[in-house]
Amino acid sequence: MTAATRPVGAPAKVGILAGMGPAAGVDFARLFLQASERWLQAHGLAVQDQAFPEHWMAQVPVADRSRALGDAKAPQPLDDMARVLEQLSAVGAKAVAIACNTAHAWHAALQARVPSVDLLHIASETAAELKRRGIGRAALLATQGTYGMGLYDAVMVREGIHCVLPEPSEREALMQGIYQGVKSGNMVLAQECFTRVGRSLRERHGDITLIMACTEIPLALPQAPQAEGWTLIDPAEILATALARRAYEGPSAH
Amino acid sequence: MTAATRPVGAPAKVGILAGMGPAAGVDFARLFLQASERWLQAHGLAVQDQAFPEHWMAQVPVADRSRALGDAKAPQPLDDMARVLEQLSAVGAKAVAIACNTAHAWHAALQARVPSVDLLHIASETAAELKRRGIGRAALLATQGTYGMGLYDAVMVREGIHCVLPEPSEREALMQGIYQGVKSGNMVLAQECFTRVGRSLRERHGDITLIMACTEIPLALPQAPQAEGWTLIDPAEILATALARRAYEGPSAH
Repeated sequence: MTAATRPVGAPAKVGILAGMGPAAGVDFARLFLQASERWLQAHGLAVQDQAFPEHWMAQVPVADRSRALGDAKAPQPLDDMARVLEQLSAVGAKAVAIACNTAHAWHAALQARVPSVDLLHIASETAAELKRRGIGRAALLATQGTYGMGLYDAVMVREGIHCVLPEPSEREALMQGIYQGVKSGNMVLAQECFTRVGRSLRERHGDITLIMACTEIPLALPQAPQAEGWTLIDPAEILATALARRAYEGPSAH
Repeated sequence: MTAATRPVGAPAKVGILAGMGPAAGVDFARLFLQASERWLQAHGLAVQDQAFPEHWMAQVPVADRSRALGDAKAPQPLDDMARVLEQLSAVGAKAVAIACNTAHAWHAALQARVPSVDLLHIASETAAELKRRGIGRAALLATQGTYGMGLYDAVMVREGIHCVLPEPSEREALMQGIYQGVKSGNMVLAQECFTRVGRSLRERHGDITLIMACTEIPLALPQAPQAEGWTLIDPAEILATALARRAYEGPSAH
């Protein structure tokens, strides 16, 4: 344990800003519990109800993120997200994770509006983890919004990781899998779209690591038989692990 | 649709008081999303992020419920649960479900302390649903705390349903499955304990309906191969459905 480790039994309260979509929020909470359990076991502590950090998940039906980024006149999600982040701070959350990649377009604005919370960043956490694992090259599966703002580009470059982007038609297939697939409850269509793009990327780049950089993608792709043996990275899992570490070890647990 | 149906697009905010244990809380949120999706489909509405009710889940490491009920000197969970219920009300929750059967020992006290929320009752909702399904007899799988306070007894009698209770040694096996099993992450032990009790009850009472009246039990029992073909009722699923109905249709949706 490091000096930053909090006294056992008093983890910090943390928050999850979610609902984008809601199934991804529930999956993020599950990943947070798994990460907390791993932390407890790694520190030789018993797994029991009272050993988990208090955590609040707000599942909020905010405006669509990709649409808001593509059209300034479309409904914008920032005010709703900021209201919820303030409420998470008010109930005591010290660190908050956003369970949506595209929503990170407003990460800086949200952090500026609610400086009282430590607002984690999914792409920074993911790039740092890829570097730790010695992965030098990966392909990004994401929304048009995430590609458009270059969410992963700068942080990947900073960590020395080459980021492969799909072709325009492949990006459209991903959007179809995300919206007409997962968000509409059609998992067969989602798997078909995601595996088609994955297969093309692997034809061009060999057994490349695929980053599932939209929280809807891990709800369908890893379960697809066609994806067996592929190297898949789930940024939500990395973010959930970072959130558990913040809860148990405090703000300096980076 | 009834006169009580809210205008589409403006469901009420609801809350989930959870963490008892946390995996059961996540499962409850999943059940709530499934119930919301069923409600949308039944009303011919599109399933999309913005169609789900805003819902807040507080996963709080409160004191153990069964222990508190068995020993007045043990740490008590009421104050922590009341604090969280007040916070859920403060962030806007109109109706709240408690994702733990045993915690309903404090249902009346919590409702009295926070009258601004409609606090659902898991056993009342379950008994009413069993009656709707025409089930006249069922066996109760629960914690010692739930047996001790007779959580289901009166409401089942009121609905004309005969409630079969396990023997003392079987109750101990259930507690072992809940505490050393699910709450400690040992699903093999949990399945072994739960199916042993289920088998005994079925030997004595035939193909009786089994009510999984502790939110930890559905995390292990339905997945056990030995339980295939058994009639299992999940009160958490019934409660989650009732919460979705309250969100979409308002307080008179009983």
